[in-house]
Formats: sequence, structure tokens, C-alpha cells
Amino acid sequence: MSGTYEYRGLRKEILPAEGKLGILLPGLGAVSSTLMAGVFLVRKGLGRPVGSLTQMSRIRLGKRNEARYPLIREFVPLADLEDLVFGSWDIMDWNAYEAALRAGVIEKERLEPVRGELEGIKALPAVFDPAFVRNLDGPNKKEYANLMEAAELVMRDIERFREETGVSRCVMCWCGSTEVYQEAPGNTIFEDLDSLERALKESSPEIPPSMVYAYAAIRSGIPFANGAPNLACDVPALTTLAIESGVPIAGKDFKTGQTLMKTIIAPGIKARLLGLEGWFSSNILGNRDGEVLDDPGSFRSKEVTKSSVLDSILRPDLYPELYGDYFHKVRIEYYPPRGDAKEGWDNIDIRGWLDAPMQIKVNFLCRDSILAAPVVLDIVLFLDLAKRAGLKGIQEWLSFYFKSPMHRADLPPVNDLFQQDEKLRNTLRILKGEMVIDHSGLDYYEQDHEEEDSSS
Amino acid sequence: MSGTYEYRGLRKEILPAEGKLGILLPGLGAVSSTLMAGVFLVRKGLGRPVGSLTQMSRIRLGKRNEARYPLIREFVPLADLEDLVFGSWDIMDWNAYEAALRAGVIEKERLEPVRGELEGIKALPAVFDPAFVRNLDGPNKKEYANLMEAAELVMRDIERFREETGVSRCVMCWCGSTEVYQEAPGNTIFEDLDSLERALKESSPEIPPSMVYAYAAIRSGIPFANGAPNLACDVPALTTLAIESGVPIAGKDFKTGQTLMKTIIAPGIKARLLGLEGWFSSNILGNRDGEVLDDPGSFRSKEVTKSSVLDSILRPDLYPELYGDYFHKVRIEYYPPRGDAKEGWDNIDIRGWLDAPMQIKVNFLCRDSILAAPVVLDIVLFLDLAKRAGLKGIQEWLSFYFKSPMHRADLPPVNDLFQQDEKLRNTLRILKGEMVIDHSGLDYYEQDHEEEDSSS
Amino acid sequence: MSGTYEYRGLRKEILPAEGKLGILLPGLGAVSSTLMAGVFLVRKGLGRPVGSLTQMSRIRLGKRNEARYPLIREFVPLADLEDLVFGSWDIMDWNAYEAALRAGVIEKERLEPVRGELEGIKALPAVFDPAFVRNLDGPNKKEYANLMEAAELVMRDIERFREETGVSRCVMCWCGSTEVYQEAPGNTIFEDLDSLERALKESSPEIPPSMVYAYAAIRSGIPFANGAPNLACDVPALTTLAIESGVPIAGKDFKTGQTLMKTIIAPGIKARLLGLEGWFSSNILGNRDGEVLDDPGSFRSKEVTKSSVLDSILRPDLYPELYGDYFHKVRIEYYPPRGDAKEGWDNIDIRGWLDAPMQIKVNFLCRDSILAAPVVLDIVLFLDLAKRAGLKGIQEWLSFYFKSPMHRADLPPVNDLFQQDEKLRNTLRILKGEMVIDHSGLDYYEQDHEEEDSSS
Amino acid sequence: MSGTYEYRGLRKEILPAEGKLGILLPGLGAVSSTLMAGVFLVRKGLGRPVGSLTQMSRIRLGKRNEARYPLIREFVPLADLEDLVFGSWDIMDWNAYEAALRAGVIEKERLEPVRGELEGIKALPAVFDPAFVRNLDGPNKKEYANLMEAAELVMRDIERFREETGVSRCVMCWCGSTEVYQEAPGNTIFEDLDSLERALKESSPEIPPSMVYAYAAIRSGIPFANGAPNLACDVPALTTLAIESGVPIAGKDFKTGQTLMKTIIAPGIKARLLGLEGWFSSNILGNRDGEVLDDPGSFRSKEVTKSSVLDSILRPDLYPELYGDYFHKVRIEYYPPRGDAKEGWDNIDIRGWLDAPMQIKVNFLCRDSILAAPVVLDIVLFLDLAKRAGLKGIQEWLSFYFKSPMHRADLPPVNDLFQQDEKLRNTLRILKGEMVIDHSGLDYYEQDHEEEDSSS
Repeated sequence: MSGTYEYRGLRKEILPAEGKLGILLPGLGAVSSTLMAGVFLVRKGLGRPVGSLTQMSRIRLGKRNEARYPLIREFVPLADLEDLVFGSWDIMDWNAYEAALRAGVIEKERLEPVRGELEGIKALPAVFDPAFVRNLDGPNKKEYANLMEAAELVMRDIERFREETGVSRCVMCWCGSTEVYQEAPGNTIFEDLDSLERALKESSPEIPPSMVYAYAAIRSGIPFANGAPNLACDVPALTTLAIESGVPIAGKDFKTGQTLMKTIIAPGIKARLLGLEGWFSSNILGNRDGEVLDDPGSFRSKEVTKSSVLDSILRPDLYPELYGDYFHKVRIEYYPPRGDAKEGWDNIDIRGWLDAPMQIKVNFLCRDSILAAPVVLDIVLFLDLAKRAGLKGIQEWLSFYFKSPMHRADLPPVNDLFQQDEKLRNTLRILKGEMVIDHSGLDYYEQDHEEEDSSS
Repeated sequence: MSGTYEYRGLRKEILPAEGKLGILLPGLGAVSSTLMAGVFLVRKGLGRPVGSLTQMSRIRLGKRNEARYPLIREFVPLADLEDLVFGSWDIMDWNAYEAALRAGVIEKERLEPVRGELEGIKALPAVFDPAFVRNLDGPNKKEYANLMEAAELVMRDIERFREETGVSRCVMCWCGSTEVYQEAPGNTIFEDLDSLERALKESSPEIPPSMVYAYAAIRSGIPFANGAPNLACDVPALTTLAIESGVPIAGKDFKTGQTLMKTIIAPGIKARLLGLEGWFSSNILGNRDGEVLDDPGSFRSKEVTKSSVLDSILRPDLYPELYGDYFHKVRIEYYPPRGDAKEGWDNIDIRGWLDAPMQIKVNFLCRDSILAAPVVLDIVLFLDLAKRAGLKGIQEWLSFYFKSPMHRADLPPVNDLFQQDEKLRNTLRILKGEMVIDHSGLDYYEQDHEEEDSSS
Repeated sequence: MSGTYEYRGLRKEILPAEGKLGILLPGLGAVSSTLMAGVFLVRKGLGRPVGSLTQMSRIRLGKRNEARYPLIREFVPLADLEDLVFGSWDIMDWNAYEAALRAGVIEKERLEPVRGELEGIKALPAVFDPAFVRNLDGPNKKEYANLMEAAELVMRDIERFREETGVSRCVMCWCGSTEVYQEAPGNTIFEDLDSLERALKESSPEIPPSMVYAYAAIRSGIPFANGAPNLACDVPALTTLAIESGVPIAGKDFKTGQTLMKTIIAPGIKARLLGLEGWFSSNILGNRDGEVLDDPGSFRSKEVTKSSVLDSILRPDLYPELYGDYFHKVRIEYYPPRGDAKEGWDNIDIRGWLDAPMQIKVNFLCRDSILAAPVVLDIVLFLDLAKRAGLKGIQEWLSFYFKSPMHRADLPPVNDLFQQDEKLRNTLRILKGEMVIDHSGLDYYEQDHEEEDSSS
Repeated sequence: MSGTYEYRGLRKEILPAEGKLGILLPGLGAVSSTLMAGVFLVRKGLGRPVGSLTQMSRIRLGKRNEARYPLIREFVPLADLEDLVFGSWDIMDWNAYEAALRAGVIEKERLEPVRGELEGIKALPAVFDPAFVRNLDGPNKKEYANLMEAAELVMRDIERFREETGVSRCVMCWCGSTEVYQEAPGNTIFEDLDSLERALKESSPEIPPSMVYAYAAIRSGIPFANGAPNLACDVPALTTLAIESGVPIAGKDFKTGQTLMKTIIAPGIKARLLGLEGWFSSNILGNRDGEVLDDPGSFRSKEVTKSSVLDSILRPDLYPELYGDYFHKVRIEYYPPRGDAKEGWDNIDIRGWLDAPMQIKVNFLCRDSILAAPVVLDIVLFLDLAKRAGLKGIQEWLSFYFKSPMHRADLPPVNDLFQQDEKLRNTLRILKGEMVIDHSGLDYYEQDHEEEDSSS
């Protein structure tokens, strides 16, 4: 399946999804192994890809009473699950089956039918720097003289993967740990490609491993997504390189548990113009992620991506009297009894008519990797679509999947899950030449007008 | 302020909001008195109309980086709070001050500065039928030979109110009790105006008091809104009459506490294609409303409007494998210790990747009338705008405010709060000739195209 | 192990727990099968009897600094788990393995090692009356001309069980459904044995099946416990018969989920003399129990046992100003997505200093049969102990395990979990001639006194 | 009212509560001002001392069916509320009315009738050391050459207070801030009075201000209680001095919000032998207390007293298989929107039969000072009683009121609220020569024995 689309007078073609697609995942932990096991189980009819828009969602086309709702995967040309091939890197010298067992997300019995497939995916040695992830370590690490050499080793891994598997296209998505927080703006080594490449050669201590992978991917012409709050590709040097290389990129930090809930509820509060006095968010989680986030440096990265979402939804700049002064606190607590399950508790203090106080409390008993796996799947399939559609650079229409969506510097980011959803869907409609939908709908009721081109 | 707008080739004019606007409220209880007290306090600078879009919201115009965000009330011509005059009916022989004291929503001390204004609003004798509201009664009732006579008495009340107050326009909004559930579809007396008027003259036991008010309002050329799950104007006879008389109408059942939350969270679950296994909603509330809903007949009305929202958001018809079989139960419990405060507890059982179970629990400590008052204010001001803009019949763009939005019979209703919000805002944009917004936004990133007419 | 004890001048002997003990359970559903599976798993070292005092608890003896804490099962002579033999009745024609599978409490894989043992326990045909349990039915029912004949059939079942298994002693514990509510006081057929036996012969519609079992057990000299809120043995005719026959009995209604929590928290509120304004309890559960309780008649039985606990703890008669007027509402909702898991949500409105309002909310995600199984185990083992110790009639010291403890008519029942716990433990101490413990402890600090006989 | 009591053969006399009682409170903040305002309001019949055992509780005497339940304050001779006179110290140069306004616990309107009384209580200059309370400061501080001089200044304050008010007795209770954590065991300066007095003279940096007050009180023969987790009197030098001086002391850290709840629920889990896997406690609070606890040093003090309660209730030493390995984490978060209200959220992971996991979640919306005020009142009245009854040193029977009860070094502390409650009540019974109560109750059912001396 392929197609052409017209956008503002130009006609573009979406190349078909022919051949196999390589999914390259730095970090073979709970998220990656849950994704892989799930894909294999779904292929065998032993599970359902719940939570994945590319696999299960329909998309409304045309007017409300036309009743056109094809599946997204039948509407735009996406790689088929049958055609996915996985590769991964990790500091642990294990395979995807071992990683899945350790993660404990899917029960051992349920893994049995896909054990073979999982055991076949062995973690390649990782680029790792304990300064960026202080609470973990492992034996399966690359050796290199400097970070540029590390990047080249990764590129060589990719090349070998391509040859061995015969994939026609690849996508890379960072599924590794949260790295220690680092300010990018103003840091000149990130400003342009020359500086960055020089810094790589000099093994600058400001370059996190995730950026090495991002550089390697984009350099190899491979779309890259960043599932952690790390810098990775979120620096001018790499966003520019992506545009110039015709590579779509996306990030950052998968929007899964509490922040997902926050970007659902905050738009509701805002829609009703209820005031916000305070929002306290506590998280307990017990997996490797929780352990990493017990390090204040890594927590800081997370805190930054988690904190900014409210402002961008509530717009205190426009509503200082309602949102100018709310107190927002986010805590993440390592709590081993939870295992891979995680739990968010939010207390939200709101104000209504005459400033009367009210409270919302949300307790979300969720599962980290269960929520993340379909997100990774959608991101890689959509990035592959974007590449075939000729899109390049930041894919803001994938904001839907990220806690802290990458965006053009002069544009405010969109964190409202529902605006993100519409952005994604209207982008798909545009790619296929269907009219966008804006829900206005007045035309249905003003009967004296003709009803031919409305999109509401 | 007034203006003209162009819509599909036609140019329309919005008449300016000149003179005073009469707000006629059947039911002088907690909601009405909280609205009135609030409006008076706001006028004196002693309170803020938090929760009201007409008073506090801005609206984005143009592209994201144009930064045009006028206040809605400066963008479209709305009646000013200074110009509102209130009238009301109730079975209790009291005034708005007494009603407010009894309701206990606003503290006595805070009511003091507006006591005079509130005492001036005396409840007119109500049209009442104990068969429709079984748990309440009061002395202040109209006497009439049949329901047509009752409607004429209401019309005479309206006429007298107009004369005494000198208002130039009126809007009526039902703020009374929930009536016993009644099926409308298929009931021939509601099919056309002749049948309905005959039934009114014959005092058919199937006609609830709220319908008498609706008939009187529409007959008087006054926009009517229905804040309860009652039939009121939701029958073909009256929606047709509204269109023919050029009267905008809206309903039904104010979306305030738990259902508001439901239409915030359900779209989030749906957006992420998470499965739904069950949704259990319990409500505890202690005011007159709770007492009325202790009657199974009235509860049934509420149950129906509360239950349908999930289906219309989740669309089990399109997603039978995710939403075809969820268990939904809504309970409302009279719990006097809560007073006017109410509390919702929702337990939501969802499914993620490979059908792994997760749970969301929401505890909403809210206040019924505090959430309802700004909703009433917005509805009446927007209905008045609609009338001046020449809109008539069902105003689906006001779905935002209702648990069970009225809609054209052949269209699915929209319950998703965020689609409703966009519908409302894009309608305002259309009324003022501004481009609609659809959040697609691809143009910002595809730099080779011109950026002149995007609305994303 | 056996022993003698002295109590108020008398010396008694506890007979040893020799031979096998038959556990006879009317109702082979989730609770019974979970108990049986658990006992078998524990015997094989494949599980732990968590929640069982008889298996895991220690008991403090002597003064605090003596550090004597033997296991209860080493302190008093109890039947060993190895010596338990199970029998059961049910309207379903299944065995304990099938019942366990259907219940879904223990995963299939985990049942595998004890499948043989479970399959060997086949449900005998039950005494059943659809008038008492309206939402269930099944094929495996006894046929009889009248209820006395039904009782005789049960006694014959018991006799055959004794012969076939060679047990030396038996205990019966009702683990069947909640029956429709019925008032006992004042009903003359329950007053004395003659009336009751006449009514049995006449198949009086006021006699529930649980009472037929209770009669059969006591007549057979077998201790009987009642795990549901049914009448069963809670009528003068049977309590008197129990005393005269030297049979200990106990009941009623296992204290497991929400009521357990209530009898933990209410004593805390009471201890601190905080006022209570309201307590709203909602329960969602999805197993056969939930289905039965969807019938208002059965719910009424449950409601009665659940409601009275607060009064007996808080004593509004003594504290009218704090507890004289609280609002208490208990709801049980059938919610199939929960399966055997159940969930309680309690909202508690309390008052502090100067009557300032505060709230406690408790969300208990529990599992019905998981909490009930060790309770059944303890009850049957302690009843067997009681019998061997010569105790007879109501065993109030087992109140600890019941929502609505049976008690002498002229004594207030004790529902406070902590007083119940102390009652149970001090009873065991008395049976073994150890001093009772009262926590006074003043003697440790008043050094001029001798410290020989304190028990604090 | 006075009396004599017999205890282990000795007969003691409780002196009557004649004359006025001075209540001396270091720290004139939310707790102190709420206590004072409350006492004044209660005296005028404008409020009720809810939460206070001394004012509202009854005590059961004799056997259950004797129905003897006098009020505690009519059973033992306590100072009357009419006879209380307050004094206080604070670093803020304000009076109790100003403190109460600032605290915002009681509404301004409600304070009006007792404004005069409150304004009359002016904070004396405080002994303060910013090294111990880092997040607060104020102008109203004593000047002194060394800490011994500071103690003497306090003693002179007490002397002057006695003279000016004419009180016959005094009690002091620390209601000030939480000080930075400090280890006492092993620190030789706290070992005996000589070392301590030398250290006071040398202004040792290890002596917190609270200890200066404690020393001054005990030296003045005044009972002292410690409402914070500070060291204060909890060192051998001062406990010994208290015994030698015949002064009763108690502490430490008022048991109010989350820990109160913890010592209610943990005994329930323990009673049922349910396993514990983890207990996560989060607290949000917004008053001065929250601000102080934002300092890690002060938080550490709190963390220590909060953490130990579980172990002493669950006894992992006796139950390693159930409680040997649970994960316990306590967080306190400064969250200004809450004001003096505070909110605890507890997640408790428990295990039942066959180790099946279950969860309890408790959300406590409470008010710090509302819970603390009656606790302070009871403590001071009971300490005064203790003094008149000739008790001295640590009053373990007041453990009921403390997060971290002081106790004899060789005894395990009792944290179980219900054992504490019984300890308190049985102590009162002993003081009055009534039999202690142990809830055994077997005698009611074993009718062949005489019923003369049971206490169950």
C-alpha cells in the first residue's frame, strides 16, 4: 500500500512499506522486551496490541454522518507486524527472553510460545557512561577511544544488522535509562554539527550516550525517537542534521503513567476555566527505572519534563489570575514492592465559582512497560511512514506520545493530549488528501446552507 | 458590540446586546441562588466568576505564533453582567436570599453585601406535579384547570416580568429538580405541536412541569435551556416549534461533577486505545438534589443521561473488541453529611498491551452548585448571543455544558469534552469570520510551503 | 499435645487432638475450595497459611520483658493440618478442583500439584431452597419430603463421611450463600427445640437451609460455625440444644473485607474521641457472592450484620453528642470485572476539636476468599479445641472472626477487633493457666513495688 | 475531688486539683493558639472539646453487664477547664490572638468572642538556636551568655508567671518546632546531670533549645511533655532527674495525623496475621510545620519517630516470615495550598492466604492543630494528675498520645494505639482501685462458675 497526497498545492507521494523494517532499540530492558514479546505474541494470535493506534485505531473521515471509519493501518501504508525485525543494545549481556523474565511484566508461562524468537535477540554491547546513569552498571559495554569512535561502532552495528537481517528500512528508538539532567540551551558544543563532532572526538563529558546513538542513527539516515528525558537528538546540531539528511525525528520521554493522566485532566480543568491552586504528584515504582530515578541527577531530568506540561496546557501567561500561581510538585519514589507496576497519586486543588475550593484525587495503578510498549510500536511505525512520506526533522504530530514533545523553537509546545490526538489524526488525513476535522458542526443545524464541504 | 459574519457564502449580522437581559429560572434552589449571589458579588468586585468561559476565557485566533488571544466576551457581543435581571419560580415561598441561606453553598457572612439584591428576587408560584418529583413538596404552587392554562400563567408571568423590569430580551433556563424518567420516542403526543397542545389542554399525565415551562418560553420567543435530565423541550413538537419560531434551545442536564470528570477521562482512555472492562461510579451528595434522586423514578432519569456518555465517546460500534463489553454502573447516594458538597468516586478498569489490567481511581470532592452556576451563566449568555446571531433550534455547539446534549436525530451526539470545547470555540470563530482551528500544524515544519492560511 | 487448665477454682482437661479431624463445609464455592487448595499446598510446602492465627501467630505469655512468645499451635493442642479431611455439599455437581477453577482465586498452574486431592472431594447433594437464595440454582440437590427428612439426610451424610474417612472428630462450618433476611426474635418456632422440630417436620417456609445443616450438626454432636449472615444456629432452640449437647457453636458472617477494615478504624476513631458525622461504604465485587447479594433479600441480611458493628463499637448510648446521629450507609454492588477480588471504598466524615470536619477515605483492594480461607481454618480448629476443652454453646471468644458475633442475649456484643483479639488470646491463656494480659504496665515504672504478678 | 488508691498492697492518695493550673507552652503557633482559643470557647459554651478524653470520654468500670460508665473527669480528679491559665514563649513577638489569626485554623469570626482572652497571652522571648530550626526565624529571642543562663531565664519566667497568675501548679508542654535530628545514645554529655549541667554552662552545640526548657521545667518541679520529636527530656540525665525530683514527664512527638492512622491500621493487619510487603506514606502539609520539615535535618527527626512505630507493632523479630522484610518509606512534602490542613496518603501492600497480594490505600484529610489541641489538653491534665498521684519519671501510660513513646530502656515501647488505650484506662482504674479489664469474658458463658471477680 502506498499513495500520494496533496498539501497546499503540492503533490507528494508516500512510498509503500515494502520489505522488512528493522526496529533498533538502545536499552533491552522491560519496555523493549515487553514490546518484542508482545509483537511476537500478536503475530501468533496469542495477544492483542491494545494501546496501539497503528494496530487498533480507526480514523473518522468526512462528515459525521458519512460513517467512514477505516482502520488507520488500512488508511495509511504502515509496516506490517509480520515485517518487523528487532535489534538492541544493553549493558547487560543477555537476550530478550532473559530481559523479559527479569522484568517480570509478562508471566513466564505466557512467554513460553515466543521464547525462541526472544532468545534470538541478543543485546549488543552498549555505549555507556556511569556519569550519566549512576545507579546501574553491567558488563556488556563497548570499548572505544572516544565518543566519535563509539558512534562509529554503533553505525557499524547498524550496518551489520542490515546485512544480516536484510531489512529494507530501519528506525531507532531509545528505550534505555534516564540520564542525568543537563542544560542544552546556550551550550555551544550542541549548536552546530561541527562543534558536536569535535566534542564527540574529544569525548566531551557533556555528551550523554543517548546522543551518541542519536548521532549514529541520523548519520545513517535512520529515523530516531527518544523515549527518555535525555538530550539525545534534542540539540540544534542534530535537529538541523535531521532536516538536512531528510530524517524524521521525535521525542522526548514516553508519555505513559502519571503525565499521561495529567495531560488528560489538566485540559479538562482548563476547558472549564477552573482555577488551579496546587497539584501534587507522587509516584511509586519498583523497577530498574525506579532505581535509576532514585539518583537525584536522573530524577532532575524527569522532573523537568514532567513539570513543564502543566504550564503549556494551562497558559499562566494568558490566565495569570487562574493559573499564575499554582504550586506544582512531582515526586518519584523507588518502592520495590511494586515491581514493574507503578502507581501515581495526584492531588489537585482547584477553584470554582467565587473561588470555592474543590479537590480531585487520582490514583492510577498502572504498568510502566504495558503502557510504553504500544507507544514505542506506534512511534517507530509512524516515523517509518514519515520517512516514506518525505517528512523530515522534528515530527511534532507525534507529540501525542511524549511527555515533553520536541517542537520548533519559536512555537509553544502542545501538551494537551486531545490537541495532540487531533494533530496526529489531521496530519494523517492531510497525508491522504482527506479534509481535516475541526468539530465546528454548525452546518448540520443551519439547514438553509448547503452541506457539501464541512468537516465538523 | 455587534458584528456580521459570513458563513458559506451568506453574510449574517449579530445584533448588539443592547438593553437589559432577563434571566428566568424555574427552580430557586442552590444552583439559582448561587448564580445570582455570585453575579451580584462579582458586580461589586467581591468575587470572581471562576468557571465561566463567557467571563474569563480567552480564545485563540489565527496561527499559533500570531499570539492573538482576546477574551471571549470582547470577541463576541455578550450581555454584560451589569445588565442581567433575574426572575424565578419555586414551590417554596421564599426569596433568593432565603434560598441561598438554606442551600448553604455560600457562607452567610459572604452573602451579606448582596442580601438586598437577593431578597428582591421572590419566587413566583411554580407549576408543580408531585407525580414527577416525589420527594419534595412546597406551598408556593400555581392553580390551574389544565396544563395549557398553567403554560399561559407562566407566559403571563414572563410578560409581567418584562414590563416590570424593562428588559429587552429574556432567556429561560430550567434549574429545578430532576423529574421522573419518561420515554419520549414513540410517544405520539410529543410528535407535533397540535398533539402536544391538545395534551396540554387535556392535562395529559405524561407532560412534566418542565415541558410546560419550555412550551411557554418558546411560545414567548424566548431561548430555553434545560439543566436537568427532564424531557422539557426535548421532543419533536418543541424542537420544531423552536426552529419555526427562530428560538435557540439547548439541553440537557448540566454537566458538573462526576459526568464532567467522565467526559474528561474517557476521551483520554479512548485516545490511547486502552481497553475498558468496567467503570463503577459512586456519588454521594447531601442536598435537595440528593433527596430528590433518592426516588428511583428521578434517579432513572439521571442514570440514563449519565450512562450514555461513555458509549458515545468510546464507540463500541466501531471498537467492539475494546469497548463492546464493558460493565458500567452509576450509583447516586443521598448522604446528608456532605450538604451541597458532593463527592464522586470512580473506579475504572482498563486494559493495556496484551490486555494487561490496570486501574484508575478518581475521587472528586466537588460542589454541585459551584460547578453549575458558571455553566448556567454561560448557557444563558450564549443562548442570547445565538438568538441575536439568528441561530435557532438545537444549539449543538453548547453540548459542552450538558451531560446529555440535544442533537439532530440522525447525528451521533458528541460527549467528548474536548470535541465539545472545540465545537464551541470554532462556532464562535465562524460567527466572527475567523478561521477555524484544527491543530494539524504540519505546515510549520514543512518549510518549503507557504504559510498563509493554516489554522493549526 | 493436651493439657489441663484451672479456671476459677475448677480444673479442666483439654483432650488431645488425636486422630483425624473432619471439616464439613456446606457450600463448595470460592471460599471452601480456596481453603482446601491452600491446606493441601501448605502440606506440600508450596504455600504459606498467611492470615491464620492457628498456623502462624505467636502469643505473648507473662510479663513484657520475659520474652515468652510461643506459637499458638504449640501452646494449645490443635489438630495438625496433616490430619484434616474435607467434606462438602453444593448445588453444583462438581468437585473441589472444578470449584477452584471456576472461582479463579488461585491460578490454574498453582492448583496443578494438588489437583488430585481436590478432585477427590466431590460435592454431596445440597439442601437448597430457591426462596432463600434467589439468584443461584444448580442441579445437585437432595430430595426430601420435609425439612426434618432433609436434616436426617445430612446426618446420614455425616455418618457415612465418618465411616469412610475414619475421622475421630468433625466440625461443620457454613461456607454457602447468604440467605434472604429473616427476623428471628419473637418468632415462636425458633424458641425451643420442640417447636423447631415440629416446624422442620412441617417444612415451615421460615426455616432456611442453613438451619437444617446447623440442626443436623448439633444433633450429631458436631461443633457448628456460621460464615454467612444467615440465621443457621442463631436461634434459642439451637443455642440451648448446643449447650445441652456439649457442642460449641460460633457465628456469624466471616469478617473479611470492608467490615474487617471498619472494625479496625472505628475503634481508632473512638479511642481518640473524634466525632462521627457519616460513614459511607461502597463495595464492588464480582463473584458468585456478588451475584447473590444483587438480590435485595440477601443484601438485607448482609446489611444488617454490616450496619450494627459501628454502634456496638462507638456506643451512641454512652456518647450521644459524638455518635448519636451519624449517617451510615452500606452499599454492595455486583461488578463482574472484579471477579473474586473485591474492593471497598469508605468515606468517613469525622469531627475534631471545636467540631472541625475531617475526612478519612479507605480504599481496600482485597480478595474475598483469600481473606476468608484462613478465617475458616482458624474457626474450625478453635471449635475443635473448644470441644476438647469442654466448652459448649456460643464461643464468644471467636467473635474476632465474625461480622456479627453471636453473644449472650443480655450482653452487648464486642465488635472492636482489638478487644476481640484480646478476648481470644486471654481465653487461650486461661485455658492453659497463664495469667491474662491487660497492658496496664504501671508496675514497671513504680520501682518501689514488687513486680511479681503483673500482667501488663 | 481527690482520692486514695491501693496498688499492690500500698495505699496512695491522689491530691485534689485545688487552685489554678498553669499551662506553659514553649511555641505559640498553630497548636498552642488552637488549644487556647478552644479552651476559651468551650468555657463560654461556644465550642466542644472534641477529641479530648479528659473532657468527653467515659470509662467502663466493672463487668460488661454492670453498665458503669462514668466520665473520666468525674472518675479521677482533674483540673477543671475553668482553672487553666496559659503562658507561652515564641520567637515571634505576638500574642495568642495574632498567632491564631496567622495559623488560620479557626476562622476569624469564630475567634471574636475570645479575642480579649487570647490577646492577653503574650509570647515571652524564646530560647532559640537557628542551628536546630533552620527554616524559621523571628525577633522575640532571649539573650544569654550560655545555655545554663538561658535555662535560668526560663525558670525566672516560670516563677514570675506563678506569682502573677497565682496558679497552684504548673505543667509545661513543648509545642514548638521540630529540631534537627540528633543521636542521644552514647553521647556522654546526656548521661548524667553533672555532664549535662556542665554542657549547659559551656553552651554545647549538641543541646537543643527544647532541652533547655525541659531542664528548666523539671528543675522547677514542673511536669514536662514533649510534643515534637526533639530530644528535650529524652536523655538519661533528665529522666533520672525527673524521678529524683518526683516529676512526671512524657513524650515524644504528638501522635496526630498519619502516624495516628498507622498505629490504628498496623495493629489490625497484625491481629489478622496478614503479611506486609511495603508501606508508602506521603504527607502534604502547608503550615509553618511543613516549612520547618522542608529542612532535611528536621525531617530526619520526624522520619525517625515515624518509622519505628511499625516495627514495634509488627515485631519482625517474632515474625520474620511476615514482617522481616517490608519496605517502609515516609515522605513529608511542603505543599502550601493545604495551609494548616494536612493530608496523608498511605499505600499498604499486604499479603494474605498463600501470599496473595492485596492493597490498602488510606487518604486522610486532616487538620494538624485540630488533632493536636485535645492531645495537648489531655497530656497536661493527666500529667498534673500524675503529679498529684505521686507518679514520677516517664509516664508510659500516656504513650497513647505520642508517635514515639518514651519508655524504660529495657522494655519494648508500645505503639499499638489500642494497647496504649487500654494501658491508659487500666492505669486510671488502678489509680482508683477499680479492677483492670482484660476482655477475656469466658466466665459469662461458663455458667457453672461463680461470677464474682471477672473483669472481662
